[in-house]
Amino acid sequence: MHHYQAPLADMLFLLKAIPALENAAPDGSDLDVSDASLVLTQAAQFIEKALVPINQSCDQQGCRFEAGEVFLPEQMGQALKDYAAAGWMGLAMPEPWGGQGLSSRIAACIGEMLTSGHHAFSMISALNTSAIKALLSFGSDTLKQQYLPKMVSGEWLGCMSLTESHCGSDLGLIRCAAEAEDDGTYTLKGNKIFISAGAHDASDNIIHLVLARLKGAPEGVKGLSLFLVPSYLPDNEPSNGKQKNQVQCIGIEEKMGIHSNPTCSICYESAKGFLVGELNQGIKVMFVMMNEMRMGTALQGIGLSEVSYQYSLEYASERRQGRSLKGAVEPNEDADSLMVHSDVRRMLLTQRAFAEGGRALSQFCAQLFDSIELSASELDQPERENNKMLLNLLTPIAKAFCTETGLESSSLAIQVFGGHGYICESGVEQIYRDGRIATLYEGTTGIQALDLLGRKVLGTQGKSLLVFTKKLHRFCQQQQDNQAFSSQLAQLAHYTQEWPQLTQSLGLKAMKDHQEVGAAAYDYLMYSGYVTLAYFTLLMAVTAQGLLDPLLLEDQVEDQTANHYSEAFLNAKIRTAHFYFARLLPRADAHKASLQSGEATLAI
Amino acid sequence: MHHYQAPLADMLFLLKAIPALENAAPDGSDLDVSDASLVLTQAAQFIEKALVPINQSCDQQGCRFEAGEVFLPEQMGQALKDYAAAGWMGLAMPEPWGGQGLSSRIAACIGEMLTSGHHAFSMISALNTSAIKALLSFGSDTLKQQYLPKMVSGEWLGCMSLTESHCGSDLGLIRCAAEAEDDGTYTLKGNKIFISAGAHDASDNIIHLVLARLKGAPEGVKGLSLFLVPSYLPDNEPSNGKQKNQVQCIGIEEKMGIHSNPTCSICYESAKGFLVGELNQGIKVMFVMMNEMRMGTALQGIGLSEVSYQYSLEYASERRQGRSLKGAVEPNEDADSLMVHSDVRRMLLTQRAFAEGGRALSQFCAQLFDSIELSASELDQPERENNKMLLNLLTPIAKAFCTETGLESSSLAIQVFGGHGYICESGVEQIYRDGRIATLYEGTTGIQALDLLGRKVLGTQGKSLLVFTKKLHRFCQQQQDNQAFSSQLAQLAHYTQEWPQLTQSLGLKAMKDHQEVGAAAYDYLMYSGYVTLAYFTLLMAVTAQGLLDPLLLEDQVEDQTANHYSEAFLNAKIRTAHFYFARLLPRADAHKASLQSGEATLAI
Repeated sequence: MHHYQAPLADMLFLLKAIPALENAAPDGSDLDVSDASLVLTQAAQFIEKALVPINQSCDQQGCRFEAGEVFLPEQMGQALKDYAAAGWMGLAMPEPWGGQGLSSRIAACIGEMLTSGHHAFSMISALNTSAIKALLSFGSDTLKQQYLPKMVSGEWLGCMSLTESHCGSDLGLIRCAAEAEDDGTYTLKGNKIFISAGAHDASDNIIHLVLARLKGAPEGVKGLSLFLVPSYLPDNEPSNGKQKNQVQCIGIEEKMGIHSNPTCSICYESAKGFLVGELNQGIKVMFVMMNEMRMGTALQGIGLSEVSYQYSLEYASERRQGRSLKGAVEPNEDADSLMVHSDVRRMLLTQRAFAEGGRALSQFCAQLFDSIELSASELDQPERENNKMLLNLLTPIAKAFCTETGLESSSLAIQVFGGHGYICESGVEQIYRDGRIATLYEGTTGIQALDLLGRKVLGTQGKSLLVFTKKLHRFCQQQQDNQAFSSQLAQLAHYTQEWPQLTQSLGLKAMKDHQEVGAAAYDYLMYSGYVTLAYFTLLMAVTAQGLLDPLLLEDQVEDQTANHYSEAFLNAKIRTAHFYFARLLPRADAHKASLQSGEATLAI
Repeated sequence: MHHYQAPLADMLFLLKAIPALENAAPDGSDLDVSDASLVLTQAAQFIEKALVPINQSCDQQGCRFEAGEVFLPEQMGQALKDYAAAGWMGLAMPEPWGGQGLSSRIAACIGEMLTSGHHAFSMISALNTSAIKALLSFGSDTLKQQYLPKMVSGEWLGCMSLTESHCGSDLGLIRCAAEAEDDGTYTLKGNKIFISAGAHDASDNIIHLVLARLKGAPEGVKGLSLFLVPSYLPDNEPSNGKQKNQVQCIGIEEKMGIHSNPTCSICYESAKGFLVGELNQGIKVMFVMMNEMRMGTALQGIGLSEVSYQYSLEYASERRQGRSLKGAVEPNEDADSLMVHSDVRRMLLTQRAFAEGGRALSQFCAQLFDSIELSASELDQPERENNKMLLNLLTPIAKAFCTETGLESSSLAIQVFGGHGYICESGVEQIYRDGRIATLYEGTTGIQALDLLGRKVLGTQGKSLLVFTKKLHRFCQQQQDNQAFSSQLAQLAHYTQEWPQLTQSLGLKAMKDHQEVGAAAYDYLMYSGYVTLAYFTLLMAVTAQGLLDPLLLEDQVEDQTANHYSEAFLNAKIRTAHFYFARLLPRADAHKASLQSGEATLAI
């Protein structure tokens, strides 16, 4: 049996050794690494003890739908309650609403761990966080007071209600109708599908954030508004849900994985709702949730790579099969361990590179997020704008690239296990099934790609991209005397120049024919992902190299967290970078060729 | 609901328009295209009517293991009996044993269709064929007479029994023991796992071909022998299994997919067995089965790409979501069909290119197989040797590359369906789950890669590779005046030169350090696959271009099969080639960079 262990050493390495990720973005949260270490250790304990052991049985048991009610596996419901009771739900939420106000960087680490430990569980906490963030940004004071304390505590749980059977990616087609009542509330009528955790027995009240169209509103997305629709209405006592609202689960989906997270079809039959944000501005409010969920999904991809790596590494170390091509490494055993096989190490290093590179990217994004939230006085306006642009640019990359690579990692886990990986008992087939959802929900890879190239890059005339590539360029310049990584630095410098050039020529093509954006978008995103991870991978390796300097290491002995980056750990970082630049980064060139070939090659 | 339809037009195009695939290998089976068309049409009807409709329910129902007996889903058992009764089992088997003696090319088409229609079913027929081929090559006359007629008719079914819990890829570790009896038979003792269809209620007698070690035999693979172990022993009447042999199924696996094919753990407790081939030559006999199964698994990969393409194409044509980036294509509808989105077409074309390119490769391999079987007088010795080398070279490429690309195609099917693809009802998640086994069994991709680079290429000092690249080179020369494909021909010519060069430099590295073979093998295989499919893709496009010539088309009107390649069909072939060379072939360069980077980059 394999056991996930939270990658605390790597997380602390990122938090401490790269405290402000090359000082580009002060995170402003007064992050104290020993505090962080404590919180992460506690979270890891909860996840390793309460979630990992129930992950497989929750999958096998699945959810039940009976007489209009949805039942989670019992262990899942209990774990949710324990998680909330321990205060994890409000970790990065503001203190006035009962949260602990911790940095988004800590929350990102925990979000990743949750998916590695129990994918179906992690979605519930991520959705609740997203709903809270939408309310914090756009909710009226009354709504905040009525809902936030219980959502932050995790007694009530938020969910997102967008999709209808005829519209997934194309939200402009939404039909769910809202009618204004005299008392300022709204009455919602319509059906939604694919509502994750939209109904279940582990919460007193599930708070739906529903995208709907007010009668007479404009067509398309410009006529959408966002409504808070609780499954129970707070009556006299503002913080207690008592009266059942007309929110009815009418079925749950049979699906490939995430069996313990119910995918609900919801019928709103004259359900009472409350406007969040302004009328016809629903998309704007939704994007606060959606961007949060996209980063959350990126963390899922990273967690998927990490847990795939851990299972594979353990199996490859224990399983003996064949001999090294050099000759027996352990002649006294019947066979050598799988680790002697170069191709097995190729698969393991692929998983590790995606996990660690993705983690560094996610930490950088979390830091950008926190920096933007700073009050104006702490961060000057141009820097705030830069950071916003950077976060906007990196969000679709993180979401799509980290989930695509997460799928690859989970498929490699099955491959390392061989036939045994196909058997349920191994656990890796569940990782593969659960993880497959990640490139689909919260905007498919194709949607992220259009968002990146169309909106974030070309839509800012390349400005946001240049903020990032300049940063990469500065890094290459600062390191120009670094002999240990001279070839990797040259590779990165090359892509740093090529990326904007490619973008410019795409921009020119797109001016003549908009379809060229769609024809290039996927490969452009993957290209961007490989270059982005190249930067973070090299940044970590260079940092590790610096820490390996004997003088520096001596200093570390004084430091109580020094053991988090042992010499072995630091050397592994360097090897990951060598591997990445030699064996994964070249894929960027294939994507480049594909994206340059244009719309003409996509005639079917 | 989506329905698979056998790609008869493409199959007939390959059989007819490229009758001897550029005349490299006469297939010698007097293949008559209208006969072939008839047989394929009948097979397609059976598969579309009897297998496709039960595929999903068989998956849901799965197999039962009760009191030592294995029960298939009822529909599966019935379908197996109907399939055998209709004579499909013996299609490409020799007429003296009750088969129909048809070309392997026809059998390859049907093998592919079977997987597209019902993966779990197709394995049973493929395993039976493999066992028959081993008996044909190595069985004693007595064994042939006792077993072949019933196996060819499909009353009895063969299976392969190799894996033990401690050894999968490393067969040298096999412990299953055989003891010689005075009557010339053997007594087998040992446990095997992962025996597909090793026990079930749809056959009177399951014929196990078991790899075991005679007492006192040498260690490792050199001490293995292959035994025929029937689950029922023929008694007085030679062709009737009556007496239960000591072959006991002790459990079946819970696994991710192929639920209606039982994966059995088998205990041989003093089971009676009969030697097939010579003592300690078991591996040689096994490789007859194994090579057959590897080509069979390649067909599974192709069938996986094909069915993924068909489902995706149908969904993308029906589902409306979003608008073309050019502006609404169907302004009267709420939204355009998914087909207007360039990225959706990219996914569809990827699936199609893998299906059609793989199919051409598999047809070429089938042709090589048949040509080798010709009597010496019909094929001169050097040509026979060349063809053998080619088939040896292409088998691991076909097995690994077509299954890896099959997995990609099935994952893309889910991606085209979006969230709906994750739901069981869609059918595509089952394709994905079932298909995932294909890169694992009959030798993982890593094993195929070592076989290709180590044994087939370097082991022949590159001779087999040169036979193939010279063929590609000749093709490029013959087409040198072809303006329509000049850039693709130049690309192919480049790889035709580069491939042997890469090989040579790998060979030199490997002489110094054997591990360099392992470090390069996977990427070498994938590189080889992309170049190989480039050739077949271009060959088809050039052929299609020739047929589009007005004069030629006019001739075709006379031909009753002309409608199998309509102008639309031929144009699609040309577009697939444009797509493949622009967007898939560049991946070869990424694999080249990775394989050149050497063992040093795989330190972990």
